[in-house]
Amino acid sequence: MSKRISIDPRDLLDRIRAFGDVGRTADGRLSRVAGTEADRAGRDTLVAWMRDHGLVIDIDAIGNVFGTWGRGCNDLDMPVVMIGSHVDTVADAGIYDGAYGVLAGLAAMRALIASGARPRRPVTLAAFTNEEGVAYIPDMMGSLVHAGGLGLAEALGSRGPDGRTLGEALERIGYAGSLAPSTIQPECYIELHVEQGPVLDSEGTAIGVVEGVQAISWQRLTIEGEANHAGTTPMHLRRDAALAAARIVTFVHDLASASNGSTVGTVGSLALEPGVVNAIPGRAVLTVDLRAVDAARLSSAEESVAAFVETLRRETGVRIDGERLVRLDAVAFDPAICARVEAAAQRRGLSSRRMTSGAGHDAQMIARIAPAAMIFVPSTAGISHSPREHTPDDSLVAGANVLLDVVAELAGIGTG
Amino acid sequence: MSKRISIDPRDLLDRIRAFGDVGRTADGRLSRVAGTEADRAGRDTLVAWMRDHGLVIDIDAIGNVFGTWGRGCNDLDMPVVMIGSHVDTVADAGIYDGAYGVLAGLAAMRALIASGARPRRPVTLAAFTNEEGVAYIPDMMGSLVHAGGLGLAEALGSRGPDGRTLGEALERIGYAGSLAPSTIQPECYIELHVEQGPVLDSEGTAIGVVEGVQAISWQRLTIEGEANHAGTTPMHLRRDAALAAARIVTFVHDLASASNGSTVGTVGSLALEPGVVNAIPGRAVLTVDLRAVDAARLSSAEESVAAFVETLRRETGVRIDGERLVRLDAVAFDPAICARVEAAAQRRGLSSRRMTSGAGHDAQMIARIAPAAMIFVPSTAGISHSPREHTPDDSLVAGANVLLDVVAELAGIGTG
Repeated sequence: MSKRISIDPRDLLDRIRAFGDVGRTADGRLSRVAGTEADRAGRDTLVAWMRDHGLVIDIDAIGNVFGTWGRGCNDLDMPVVMIGSHVDTVADAGIYDGAYGVLAGLAAMRALIASGARPRRPVTLAAFTNEEGVAYIPDMMGSLVHAGGLGLAEALGSRGPDGRTLGEALERIGYAGSLAPSTIQPECYIELHVEQGPVLDSEGTAIGVVEGVQAISWQRLTIEGEANHAGTTPMHLRRDAALAAARIVTFVHDLASASNGSTVGTVGSLALEPGVVNAIPGRAVLTVDLRAVDAARLSSAEESVAAFVETLRRETGVRIDGERLVRLDAVAFDPAICARVEAAAQRRGLSSRRMTSGAGHDAQMIARIAPAAMIFVPSTAGISHSPREHTPDDSLVAGANVLLDVVAELAGIGTG
Repeated sequence: MSKRISIDPRDLLDRIRAFGDVGRTADGRLSRVAGTEADRAGRDTLVAWMRDHGLVIDIDAIGNVFGTWGRGCNDLDMPVVMIGSHVDTVADAGIYDGAYGVLAGLAAMRALIASGARPRRPVTLAAFTNEEGVAYIPDMMGSLVHAGGLGLAEALGSRGPDGRTLGEALERIGYAGSLAPSTIQPECYIELHVEQGPVLDSEGTAIGVVEGVQAISWQRLTIEGEANHAGTTPMHLRRDAALAAARIVTFVHDLASASNGSTVGTVGSLALEPGVVNAIPGRAVLTVDLRAVDAARLSSAEESVAAFVETLRRETGVRIDGERLVRLDAVAFDPAICARVEAAAQRRGLSSRRMTSGAGHDAQMIARIAPAAMIFVPSTAGISHSPREHTPDDSLVAGANVLLDVVAELAGIGTG
């Protein structure tokens, strides 16, 4: 048995910190929103580090950045083992979401290259464009285009808040590449990411073996009651839109709580009109976010909400109109790769648990064209999309080593 | 038995319509907000009509307008029977709130004067400044100053949204009068007003005999939970500020509904942060408006809400801070005047019911210094502070005749 290959912890942690300062503004906020100068700076840093490691760089027409080991410049049709995530961020972000997966992939490739091993198939590190979808819709755009789920022209034509298209933004920052999308074909795909939820942290589990991504349903409900004087209108003559909204908030919570973890439900936004202290609200607009581990459970939750809304309508005399905003099917990851992740964690002496991702990730897009899976490491208190996002150093190192082990196996390199 | 004196229905209705167009803007909205040019126009019209009826006009230093019948210019210290309300409005108002009481008072005095009767004591029609409190705080200001509850300097120093004081506004519109506030002393006070609530309309009752004004409590509650990802945070690890807010909305409603009409409760405003579809709200700010027929019931309702909030805090781990915004004691009107209103309605063949006002009125201020009461007429569907505010013509006439009868009695004039 040869010596086990591991990543260089210091190098990984230093690069995560350094990369977290790329795109940080004068007021100390990190915002590498896709298509901005800060995004350019992040990409430039990543490409420079890829080159330092001897990777072959390709930029495709949607701006996805690929760095490949074990392939000549002209062997673009060779299927690859793909590692990936993204380096764009939300506004006022933490340093781990996205960048951690890319930099840990770089660290894993560095360790494998340094070991002198030769991969049986090329290994490609991908940084997909506009995963966050802050300025350009849809999110997970680069991976979706790569998987053939969205046309290049449509993606490049997506208009940001400044009125300019993503295509123009990519030209401006120098990342409108010449490679046709989907050229580099993953034979399999593995993505390492911070959990962005509290499950691993609260349990003290080191590694999440992500078996799939939840199905998502977003709807907007508009309740029309009757605005009236708060002092002069008897309780039994009211048609209070806020009360109907409150009952929906409570119902959604109770419904999801009773699901034993298979469903989550959230009313994240709620606006009342006229919205003053002494008027009964005549109108309420709220959103319902439902997510479930599979399509059947999501449909069941949607139906329960619809039935409750119908009862509310009938019993309270308010009018309630619904509008579907988003409906995404659940994604199942590849069981064989999940088993490899689990086994790798065990060999490293790390606790692990199977789980479903509640957030969207590039992996769910690539799963359309290749066996894919994800590895999660804990997020302290589940905080994400916030400067307070945090993952402890030992967790960062542990996740990167599990990634390294799985990539080595998938690329046909013995590591232990 | 002499012939019964009644108001001239056509004259009253015409004046209400005409007055409803005074201060109407080019886009058709009626906004006679206190201190504005539109307020000046309303006052000018009223004063002209008072003069037409031979009333003695007095303007006091807070801008209250008085028109008196049966008193010489130099008999300012004679106690009077006072009728009153206000002619200022909210923005985009209906035509009845305030103006109806003043114009019906004018119609009643017109009918009494025309009858040739001589009152045993003077009758004064008052239009109090800034009842609505749109631009200058507090509301019911003119009557409060008249009753000695607010100093003149403080009232005149109240600053509007344009940064100028009410004193400056009154100077500008020509209604900074020379009479010292409180000079004209009511021996008793009666105010006719549209209900601004649905009780009379929904019951088909013609006349509301208003026995008092509800006690009012306004508080703002700020709930601090934890904002988190709606997809990745298990239900049992959430501290959802929207859920806590929803439980308060429901509790307030259920509490008031169980009071058998002695208490009303409303959550009129509720704001969530971050307030996006896919984030668990970390913060909710809401208001609770509680009103009750007496102080004991109001305190009891406040205590119930406080106890519920405490339970919620303990059980859900959110932080809830409360801030008192308004606390007004209940006002009891004069039983003898209420009995006169009831008897007058009966003599006119009008149905009536005892009730408590849920809205604030000038009468509650004048009740501090004289026996007072109010007469309500129906508001269709309870709509108020809206262009859709409406009272049918026959109700307007009926209310004015009841006012006439009560004023005649109080002033010592036989009418029937």
